[in-house]
Amino acid sequence: MKCIDLNCDLGENFGKYQPFNDHLILPHITSANIACGYHAGDAVTMQKTVVLAKKYSVAVGAHPGYPDLIGFGRRNLAVSADEVYAYVKYQIGALLAFAISENCPLVHVKPHGAMYNMAAADVNLARAIAQAIYEVDKNLILVGLAGSALIDAGRQIGLTVAQEVFADRRYLDSGQLVPRNVKGAVIEDVDQAIEQVLQIVLNNKVTTLSGKQINIVADTLCLHGDSQSAIDFVVKVKEQLVKHDVKIAALGD
Amino acid sequence: MKCIDLNCDLGENFGKYQPFNDHLILPHITSANIACGYHAGDAVTMQKTVVLAKKYSVAVGAHPGYPDLIGFGRRNLAVSADEVYAYVKYQIGALLAFAISENCPLVHVKPHGAMYNMAAADVNLARAIAQAIYEVDKNLILVGLAGSALIDAGRQIGLTVAQEVFADRRYLDSGQLVPRNVKGAVIEDVDQAIEQVLQIVLNNKVTTLSGKQINIVADTLCLHGDSQSAIDFVVKVKEQLVKHDVKIAALGD
Amino acid sequence: MKCIDLNCDLGENFGKYQPFNDHLILPHITSANIACGYHAGDAVTMQKTVVLAKKYSVAVGAHPGYPDLIGFGRRNLAVSADEVYAYVKYQIGALLAFAISENCPLVHVKPHGAMYNMAAADVNLARAIAQAIYEVDKNLILVGLAGSALIDAGRQIGLTVAQEVFADRRYLDSGQLVPRNVKGAVIEDVDQAIEQVLQIVLNNKVTTLSGKQINIVADTLCLHGDSQSAIDFVVKVKEQLVKHDVKIAALGD
Amino acid sequence: MKCIDLNCDLGENFGKYQPFNDHLILPHITSANIACGYHAGDAVTMQKTVVLAKKYSVAVGAHPGYPDLIGFGRRNLAVSADEVYAYVKYQIGALLAFAISENCPLVHVKPHGAMYNMAAADVNLARAIAQAIYEVDKNLILVGLAGSALIDAGRQIGLTVAQEVFADRRYLDSGQLVPRNVKGAVIEDVDQAIEQVLQIVLNNKVTTLSGKQINIVADTLCLHGDSQSAIDFVVKVKEQLVKHDVKIAALGD
Repeated sequence: MKCIDLNCDLGENFGKYQPFNDHLILPHITSANIACGYHAGDAVTMQKTVVLAKKYSVAVGAHPGYPDLIGFGRRNLAVSADEVYAYVKYQIGALLAFAISENCPLVHVKPHGAMYNMAAADVNLARAIAQAIYEVDKNLILVGLAGSALIDAGRQIGLTVAQEVFADRRYLDSGQLVPRNVKGAVIEDVDQAIEQVLQIVLNNKVTTLSGKQINIVADTLCLHGDSQSAIDFVVKVKEQLVKHDVKIAALGD
Repeated sequence: MKCIDLNCDLGENFGKYQPFNDHLILPHITSANIACGYHAGDAVTMQKTVVLAKKYSVAVGAHPGYPDLIGFGRRNLAVSADEVYAYVKYQIGALLAFAISENCPLVHVKPHGAMYNMAAADVNLARAIAQAIYEVDKNLILVGLAGSALIDAGRQIGLTVAQEVFADRRYLDSGQLVPRNVKGAVIEDVDQAIEQVLQIVLNNKVTTLSGKQINIVADTLCLHGDSQSAIDFVVKVKEQLVKHDVKIAALGD
Repeated sequence: MKCIDLNCDLGENFGKYQPFNDHLILPHITSANIACGYHAGDAVTMQKTVVLAKKYSVAVGAHPGYPDLIGFGRRNLAVSADEVYAYVKYQIGALLAFAISENCPLVHVKPHGAMYNMAAADVNLARAIAQAIYEVDKNLILVGLAGSALIDAGRQIGLTVAQEVFADRRYLDSGQLVPRNVKGAVIEDVDQAIEQVLQIVLNNKVTTLSGKQINIVADTLCLHGDSQSAIDFVVKVKEQLVKHDVKIAALGD
Repeated sequence: MKCIDLNCDLGENFGKYQPFNDHLILPHITSANIACGYHAGDAVTMQKTVVLAKKYSVAVGAHPGYPDLIGFGRRNLAVSADEVYAYVKYQIGALLAFAISENCPLVHVKPHGAMYNMAAADVNLARAIAQAIYEVDKNLILVGLAGSALIDAGRQIGLTVAQEVFADRRYLDSGQLVPRNVKGAVIEDVDQAIEQVLQIVLNNKVTTLSGKQINIVADTLCLHGDSQSAIDFVVKVKEQLVKHDVKIAALGD
């Protein structure tokens, strides 16, 4: 039986800025990637988000990013391997304190934004991130772009890895995502997005922007919860996955 | 036999700013309070400082402060109990990741600067800090101003507490430190400072600014390592303590 | 003829956090206090907000705050006079660059949140703020709480001052605002709020929380634009002011 | 008669971190590039540095950088043109307030670190920076790497530009600096560094790492003041320049 985890980036409110209503998406997902205060989130938000995730029995993971609050961690930053290694440890630890306090296991780590994208292609960054995770807790599951350098680095060091796929993003023939500034990068049509999810999850294939079919493995699907239409989409995807006998479960379950 | 811990605030370098040479004081102390990135320090510095402390067999503790890098955490900030509770958890966790990685136990927590001072007098802040520590790890030792509200709060929740005393600061009749802006707050003379240490450690008494003798208990002595004269002072204090048969050991040893 | 300015704090979005829609309130007010990147706002937001204010012919002023983004500048911070003096200059200058670029005069300065409140009572802070403004441009109008130390300090140094009053906050007999954590601090009822505005603007009196009538002078009224109900309130207040022959105009007009 | 400006990055202390003694280098230079709080410096430091530069009759300029305090603005950051445009305006304005207060003209703008390097090659960033400067004050002089895209962009928009050269860095055949991580990037030998300065200033030529001679124009020479050996070097360079009848004067003089 096919099985997939549904993950969403959460805990991204900051101080007085509270645009996100995490409780709306939590009933629908299995894993929460919680921001750790570098690119978004703050200590008070982390506390609340861990409590909320636990309430909905959603697995908790760390979502470390670059120290670029003003850019939401989405801007490439020329960090060294030593820097990213320390940044990842710091952020995992910060979340770990809240997880320990709530008696809620920390299950996975998924880098955010520019860190995620750069580590998908840069072997040195990927290794530094994997090593940081391994040293804090070798049982943590590393979530990275399916088929990327980050997945390779995680496997190499001995971590369990989870290959992530996207419903609403087109792929290049290389297996990387089409950059957002390229036309056709984002799948706007809900039915096409669902079709891509089913193609990936059921057949381990995806049709790239150029029309080619490539192999892809999906352990977890990235979803969004920042609007009602995003949540409606999650509900639809789940219906289709269940209809096709795909089991939905958190990583490690 | 009398026993005392010698602690020092370390890991306070930040980015390119590297004024502090922690390796100079480490051979002389038993406990290191490591800054956690809010008032000073950064992830790379924390990594280095934990490695260094372990090398010198110095006990490692967290030194959480207010999120006020520009003020070095020394300016009173009207945080709520919920905020300080989350800030303390976050910072302990961040350091914990580096301690776990280096297989180096986290022994104690000592709030920094304005957080330390405010928690010495404000029962609500003191309780929030004690609770945060307890929830992350109830075996952590809480270091606070001798006789202060923070020590009371730690005891009340069930933490082991360590009462901290100062060599170079004068005391009020209330047991609080004379504020730095009051004349006579700081003991400039080395011999007088050593005399005060011996009076406290050997007799559990201190002569206040007004000339009164009050009771005081010393589990740990706060020292500085940011200049050669500070290090020379530490060496002299240790000689005198040893000469008077005081055992010098980390908290919990 | 009575005359009053209607001011609102604007430009408080930050990075990806864009909860505020400043263009909704701009048609209804005469002065915009623009955040300068310390407590809220960022350079990109400041650029946009100046352009927007100019488009609606709303007078532009600086809204400097404490460097406490996570607390939105609302938490008292024990800054020195030298620090607040430099913080105010820095923030006025930052906004000045955008104002100059858009050929849009900088008219006033209104401190934000905790800086505003502390300067209402602390003469040294008030003087440092007034001096900073005067040194950057002695023609800037200083906006402060009516009857406060900040107004006194502005007058003393030779600045034009504008006394600010509030529609939805109750006053103490001293002329200070009832602190938010005291019951009755906020006037929830729209009609009562309008009544207070009219009492202040038409009669230069306000009924305090204790029921006493005190004298108060109003040059500018603080309004909010962060919700539809806030905007509806502004429209109603304006109708009443116009009905009572009060002229609505920006400071200095 | 040949003429050159001697510039140095100053005002880079931050909060309690005060490693730099700007008054040691100030007697020896003609232009100060003052950090503006993004990559280094803070409001209090800016105030002090402007006062100090004026005391030594050194021309004051803004030294804007990326918002990356932890990386000292030296790490490439994928900012958009809109972002860098707003960042530059903000920082010029912030410094302008202190310059106005001290009745000290703002003469030039020199981007810092990664912003400087990226703008030397990226036409869009270069244009955005030049436009920001022009809009704040079209009489400001733009300092950039000699022969770079930033110099071109400044000229194109109508700014006076100043081509900067380096004493202690080797050049590529393209006229760009050899990246620091390449062997031979830095000239360690004092005599060789002086020889390079004289070759550039007197002959408008520089011998590249590959041994080729290329043309180069020098309006201003970048110097350092953060160590005694750096200051000794400045003194020697000046002696040699004077000996060769080169006039030393601030930009615009």
